[in-house]
Amino acid sequence: MPTSFACFMKPVLHGYFRSSCSWRVRIAFALKGIEYDQEPVNLVKDGGQQLTEQYKTVNPMQQVPAVTIDGITLSQSLAIIQYIDETRPRPPFLPADLQQRAQVRMISDLIASGIQPLQNIYVIQKVGEEKVQWAQHFINKGFKALESILKQTSGTYCVGNEISMADICLVPQVYNAERFKVDLDQYPTIKRINQTLMELEAFKISHPSCQPDTPDDLRA
Amino acid sequence: MPTSFACFMKPVLHGYFRSSCSWRVRIAFALKGIEYDQEPVNLVKDGGQQLTEQYKTVNPMQQVPAVTIDGITLSQSLAIIQYIDETRPRPPFLPADLQQRAQVRMISDLIASGIQPLQNIYVIQKVGEEKVQWAQHFINKGFKALESILKQTSGTYCVGNEISMADICLVPQVYNAERFKVDLDQYPTIKRINQTLMELEAFKISHPSCQPDTPDDLRA
Repeated sequence: MPTSFACFMKPVLHGYFRSSCSWRVRIAFALKGIEYDQEPVNLVKDGGQQLTEQYKTVNPMQQVPAVTIDGITLSQSLAIIQYIDETRPRPPFLPADLQQRAQVRMISDLIASGIQPLQNIYVIQKVGEEKVQWAQHFINKGFKALESILKQTSGTYCVGNEISMADICLVPQVYNAERFKVDLDQYPTIKRINQTLMELEAFKISHPSCQPDTPDDLRA
Repeated sequence: MPTSFACFMKPVLHGYFRSSCSWRVRIAFALKGIEYDQEPVNLVKDGGQQLTEQYKTVNPMQQVPAVTIDGITLSQSLAIIQYIDETRPRPPFLPADLQQRAQVRMISDLIASGIQPLQNIYVIQKVGEEKVQWAQHFINKGFKALESILKQTSGTYCVGNEISMADICLVPQVYNAERFKVDLDQYPTIKRINQTLMELEAFKISHPSCQPDTPDDLRA
């Protein structure tokens, strides 16, 4: 850890149980075995708690997740995950091989830039009535490409046989796809890897159905 | 370089002069002093050359940029840029300090996941008539947050006094903002850093106004 006080302060995740980007960070903490506190930000209640002036000081983008760690506050889930990985290297989230690292980042960015932003709550609210078709369109477009890429790169997991940042992105995106009723049978590789990952403790304990802010009627 | 044949083969950029994500990669090559060939993909002509079956084998996501380098083909501009950085480390695109690295990635992802995907050609085409207001809305939302973050992190450039991946993302996003007539005077820090960067050779030679596929009427 980079600074001495880090030993005394647990990281704080400002997140929302159902946010797929918050789930990415929860998986990352779980895989590394890092204890952290959660500070829930309800994206729906009171018109969206992320829109308060107080939360704006945590993340000027007024989105979740944000993480306070080692004396700084970071937003953007992949930046957070790579910071965690660079400061707490075991087990690694990126392979040692440079071309495989690039593939992990390519898959992560395909999801984080190519799919998720187009079906997140801010965009869906702006789209209005056609929101389900809109989300399905962009998830299917992304999943078609992802399925084709994973056929080349995957072993047990997204890239080879080690869990990576790509897997951390995959599972929450599949969860979103299911919420928007995307037919996953079209994507057998995505479906297989997701099922394999969901057997693992780190993915189970971080699931939206069992967080401190999960409403009772959505609890597993 | 990771493989011996890389010495004989120049990287190939599949891009489009006006694509901001393609420009990011052109800046990266220019900053590293890497010679490369361009294989233009016209996103407008013939209904979009990125939609052909041939291009789908280059990038299943049917977007630009894609880069063929060292025997592999990569898509997603930040994955490409970090691959270039990890295989050709000088000058570095990420600071050595781990917290500054996280800030560079946070700013890069704010642009690459938080702004650009919401105003790119695929989305704008789907939005239809209200496309200018839509793009302005999401660029302004992102730039408000970015301005606030840059006030904390910037020196001469986005993070401190060294050029980083964040700067590579900033300049093409400002170019997009100008195309959509966003008032940049609201964002003095963004405007200042952009102006400073645009004085540099690597940003000038990679500009959309002077690429092999730039139409004559848009040439500088």
